[in-house]
Amino acid sequence: MAAQLQPESNEQDVLEANQAFYEALQSLDLAQMEEIWLHEDWVGCLRPGWELIMSWQDVRESWANIFRSTGQVRVGISRAWVHGEGETAWFRCIENATAASQEGFSTTVVEVTNTFVRRHGRWRLAHRHTTSLAGRVPSGTSLSVQ
Amino acid sequence: MAAQLQPESNEQDVLEANQAFYEALQSLDLAQMEEIWLHEDWVGCLRPGWELIMSWQDVRESWANIFRSTGQVRVGISRAWVHGEGETAWFRCIENATAASQEGFSTTVVEVTNTFVRRHGRWRLAHRHTTSLAGRVPSGTSLSVQ
Repeated sequence: MAAQLQPESNEQDVLEANQAFYEALQSLDLAQMEEIWLHEDWVGCLRPGWELIMSWQDVRESWANIFRSTGQVRVGISRAWVHGEGETAWFRCIENATAASQEGFSTTVVEVTNTFVRRHGRWRLAHRHTTSLAGRVPSGTSLSVQ
Repeated sequence: MAAQLQPESNEQDVLEANQAFYEALQSLDLAQMEEIWLHEDWVGCLRPGWELIMSWQDVRESWANIFRSTGQVRVGISRAWVHGEGETAWFRCIENATAASQEGFSTTVVEVTNTFVRRHGRWRLAHRHTTSLAGRVPSGTSLSVQ
């Protein structure tokens, strides 16, 4: 999945944790998702078009809601990138996700930062920030201040 | 600026670094911006509606372009939050930014994660991820898989 990467050994562990996240997502497997996330109050998850969800309890509930109403999810990853700094690591990529529910299919393309923290030797997902790429413009020009 | 926070001493240092970022932004001060960012290849900056900019060199160039074409910037912060983990720290908030250029004014509201890394005792901005809040919906329901 994470092509074009030649990670150091530490980053290989991060990639495996990240891979487990996408497997849990595609399996709609809440128990597996619980294994991956850090169970602390400060974790966060920002889905495209939604308010920021904070605390593991609320993040867990949001996954439970999503998995209940979703029939199938498939995620394609491009421009995958990983970097570790001590006990923190970042995985950046572009996700192309298709989800099926009773209402039909929907597809979203988002820029993602998954941030992992190592606790007791295990990399856990602590913060996930996504941004829809609908309407994006190329970098290198200067129309925005942010 | 960072209301509703009662940070620990370590997080106070992060808030000061974060405050310096917004001062540099509002002053259109590239030299001050250079002081704040980590000068390494892996840093990243995602502006709303733009492609991810990677590497300090390209991030610096993007600020230079923005500052050249912008007359004035004012940023309001709400729902400010900070958390530190060892040598990494996160500042999350909602930014309400107004920028003036020759073309007129524009206003954007974005959800922000500024990630700081401590190098040689100084907190430096390493990764900035923004998401436009236009069209957001309340959390707690289950229409999206991401």
